[in-house]
Amino acid sequence: MRQLFHDELEQVATDLVSLAELVSTAISQATTALLEADVQLADQVIEGDKAIDVRRNDLDSRSIDLLARQAPVASDLRTVVASMRMSGDLERMGDLARHVAQVARMRYPERAVPDELRDVFERMGRVGEDIVQRVGAIILSLDLEQAQDIEQVDDQLDELHRDMFTRLAEGAWAHGTTSAVDVALLSRYYERFGDHAVTVARRVVFLVTGEAGAVELPEESERD
Amino acid sequence: MRQLFHDELEQVATDLVSLAELVSTAISQATTALLEADVQLADQVIEGDKAIDVRRNDLDSRSIDLLARQAPVASDLRTVVASMRMSGDLERMGDLARHVAQVARMRYPERAVPDELRDVFERMGRVGEDIVQRVGAIILSLDLEQAQDIEQVDDQLDELHRDMFTRLAEGAWAHGTTSAVDVALLSRYYERFGDHAVTVARRVVFLVTGEAGAVELPEESERD
Repeated sequence: MRQLFHDELEQVATDLVSLAELVSTAISQATTALLEADVQLADQVIEGDKAIDVRRNDLDSRSIDLLARQAPVASDLRTVVASMRMSGDLERMGDLARHVAQVARMRYPERAVPDELRDVFERMGRVGEDIVQRVGAIILSLDLEQAQDIEQVDDQLDELHRDMFTRLAEGAWAHGTTSAVDVALLSRYYERFGDHAVTVARRVVFLVTGEAGAVELPEESERD
Repeated sequence: MRQLFHDELEQVATDLVSLAELVSTAISQATTALLEADVQLADQVIEGDKAIDVRRNDLDSRSIDLLARQAPVASDLRTVVASMRMSGDLERMGDLARHVAQVARMRYPERAVPDELRDVFERMGRVGEDIVQRVGAIILSLDLEQAQDIEQVDDQLDELHRDMFTRLAEGAWAHGTTSAVDVALLSRYYERFGDHAVTVARRVVFLVTGEAGAVELPEESERD
C-alpha cells in the first residue's frame, strides 16, 4: 500500500514536470509570436493553454483522490498539498503566457512592441523560459541550492520590469498611449510569471525543510 | 469525532467570512485612498494586507491539520480542499487592494486618477466592495442562486474595465503616458479582483452540486 502510494506521488511529480515543460514552450512561443507578430503562433499558444488547464485539473483530481484513498499524514500530506498548489502556480504561468500571445494577436498585423524595446522583451522571454525549466528540474531533484537560485533568476525579470517603467516615464516615451499600455501590461505579465516560479521554488524548500513562512508570492514591486 | 470535525469545518467557514470582511474593508479604503490621495489610508491598507496573509496562512494550516487528523472523504474532503482554495482567492484579492493603495501612495501628493475618471473608479470600488461582501455571504449560505448572481456583478467590473481601455485609446487620452499606465493597471486590478470573486462563487457551486468543470478563473478579457 505505501509503495503504491509513493509510486502515485512520484507520478504526480512527473506530471508537474511535464506541466512545466508545456509552460516553457508556451512562454517561448508567446514571446516569438509577440516579437514577430506571428498570429498563427499566438493562436497556438492561446489554444494550447486549454490543454494546460485540463492537465492541471486532472492532476488535482488525482491528488484529491490520493487524499481520500490514502489519508496521508506528515510529510506525505504536505507533499500532496504542495503539489496541488504548484499545479496552480504553473497553470497561472500558462495563463500569463496566453496573455502575452493575446496582445500579439490583438495588434496583428502590427507589432505590439516598438523596435527599441525588442531586445528587452527578447530577454524577458528567455529568462521566463529559463526560470520555468529550472522549476521543472527542482520539482524532481528537490535540490535546495537550485531552488534558492530561482530568486536570483527572478531578480533579472524584476530589473527588466523596473527598466521598462523608466522608459515609460513622462517625456521619455514616443510611441503613444496604446503602445505604452501594451508594454506596461506585457512587462507585468513576465514579472508575474517569475513571481510564480519563485513561489514554486519556495514550496519545494518548504517541502524539504518543513520550514513554513515565506511560501507566498514574493513581494511584488511597488510599481505594480 | 464527526461532530467535532463539523464544528471545525464550520469554524473554517466563519474564518473565511471574516477574511472576506477584511478584504472588503481593504478594497473600500484603497479606493478612497486612491481618489482622495490619502496616503495615511493607503499605508493602512498596505500594512493591513499583512494581517490578511497571516490569517490566510493560519486558516490553511488548520485545514491541513484537519486533513491529517480526520482524513475526511467525499464531500467533507471536497469542503476542506475548496476552503484552502477560497482562502487563496481571498488573499489574492487582498493583494489587489494593496496594489491599488500602492499606486495611490506612489503618486502622492498628486492624485493618480484624472478627474474625469474619478466616477469610474468610484464605481469600480463600490462594485468591488459589493462583490466581496456577497462572496462572504455565499460562503455561509451556500446559496446557489446568490452564487450565480456573482457573475452578473462581475460583468459590471468587466464592462468598466473595457470602457477604460476605450478611453485610453490613441488620440482620446490627454493625460500623458504615466497616467495612462497607472489607469490601465488600476483598472486591471479591479477586474482581477472581480475574477477571483467569481472563482470563489464557482467553488461554492462545485461544493454544493459536486459538478466539476468551470471552477477556474473566468476567461479574462482579450484586452489583458
